[in-house]
Amino acid sequence: MVILSKSNPTVRELCALTEKKGRRESGTFLLEGEKTVRECMKSSLEIVRLVVREDYDGETCGYPRVVLGADAFRAVCDVKTPQGIAAEVRIPFRKTEPPEKSCLVLDGVSDPSNVGAILRTAVAAGYEEVYCVSTADPYSPKCVRASMSAVFYAKIMQCTREETVCALKGVSVIAADMSGENVFSFRAPAKFALVIGNEGQGLSDIMRERADHTVSVPMGEHSESLNAAVSAGILMYQLKRK
Amino acid sequence: MVILSKSNPTVRELCALTEKKGRRESGTFLLEGEKTVRECMKSSLEIVRLVVREDYDGETCGYPRVVLGADAFRAVCDVKTPQGIAAEVRIPFRKTEPPEKSCLVLDGVSDPSNVGAILRTAVAAGYEEVYCVSTADPYSPKCVRASMSAVFYAKIMQCTREETVCALKGVSVIAADMSGENVFSFRAPAKFALVIGNEGQGLSDIMRERADHTVSVPMGEHSESLNAAVSAGILMYQLKRK
Repeated sequence: MVILSKSNPTVRELCALTEKKGRRESGTFLLEGEKTVRECMKSSLEIVRLVVREDYDGETCGYPRVVLGADAFRAVCDVKTPQGIAAEVRIPFRKTEPPEKSCLVLDGVSDPSNVGAILRTAVAAGYEEVYCVSTADPYSPKCVRASMSAVFYAKIMQCTREETVCALKGVSVIAADMSGENVFSFRAPAKFALVIGNEGQGLSDIMRERADHTVSVPMGEHSESLNAAVSAGILMYQLKRK
Repeated sequence: MVILSKSNPTVRELCALTEKKGRRESGTFLLEGEKTVRECMKSSLEIVRLVVREDYDGETCGYPRVVLGADAFRAVCDVKTPQGIAAEVRIPFRKTEPPEKSCLVLDGVSDPSNVGAILRTAVAAGYEEVYCVSTADPYSPKCVRASMSAVFYAKIMQCTREETVCALKGVSVIAADMSGENVFSFRAPAKFALVIGNEGQGLSDIMRERADHTVSVPMGEHSESLNAAVSAGILMYQLKRK
């Protein structure tokens, strides 16, 4: 059965996933696009149902599916010119636990594209465990898109600063800070937590106090700062360099 | 005199600057926001005129100025909630010349936010000379915003691939490429040109052929690529590291 009406209850449920409130209520988020959905099928995340446009003729691999008319499908998607497939995926709930390896703490990073790009780099650079504290929602459409499948592989823990500090007990904490030591001359221990602060305000007081070291990326005289995702990327790779 | 009408010829002229066509015709671009305009005053760029909202009470330092009503001012600005000041600035024309120091070539980078973030990193990391070949317009509102004043300090040359190849005669060319050598074990010469390709397609044939070396950022098994600005940032800093 093809659902045509945008006011159909199922369409409304799916539309609600573009907002944080809707995602919290359903415990799911929406993934858009052929490549992303295929990648998700290979990951350990649970696909609740596929959402396809009526003209979609790709393989749906036995997943439960909802078929929508073009207008209803466009209403559900966040991108302007959607491909014909999306998936409603269960948000994995992960307890806040101590990290097994070097990990990342996002301390108030507020731009969803930055959070997405940082997750993308984190998975590439081997910082799979990510503590998200007062950040943009990692499961928002913008963030998921910018993360390029990294949300499937990162072990994202959404928690408070206090929970994070507790989980990091005994772990060396290195925080990014403008006035920190030049990261290119800094020697990181084998296991550490890297903290990235807010784009404008930097670190929170709690994280600044908890930090064992602060590091920075050196800059020329005409620069005040770098883009948060760029700076996080440079730090992540540099700190792991032996 | 306060201009209230959005159809006033001056307002139309200023509105046209949000589009590439308008910027090409006038040879100017628009900068928005208090901090950015103040920073521009300190740079060598030429401010043609300031554009202020009627309630703006900051210093205008003797620059020619146009005063607009709130509606007209909002129509001129690209951001949704503009501050009360903007500036029309002359686009510096720079001949395509050989680089004096290590430089950057943007080879088809198409996302304005990526171009802006890359320029921001380039100025911070000491790659002031930037050859822009088939990239998003560095003077578009999005790019200027993402560059955070770097457009004032970067020596941006907008040119063809052939002109760039000609300017780089005798210079060691290092191109970013997925299959390139691990940048963390690569030793760059003292002076080089770093080439960053398109987000999806990578390098152009011309630049790939011209490259003396290709380098890449190593990634874990679940990653296909990094965000272009993040990857460019890691490469820029790493290649300059002695």
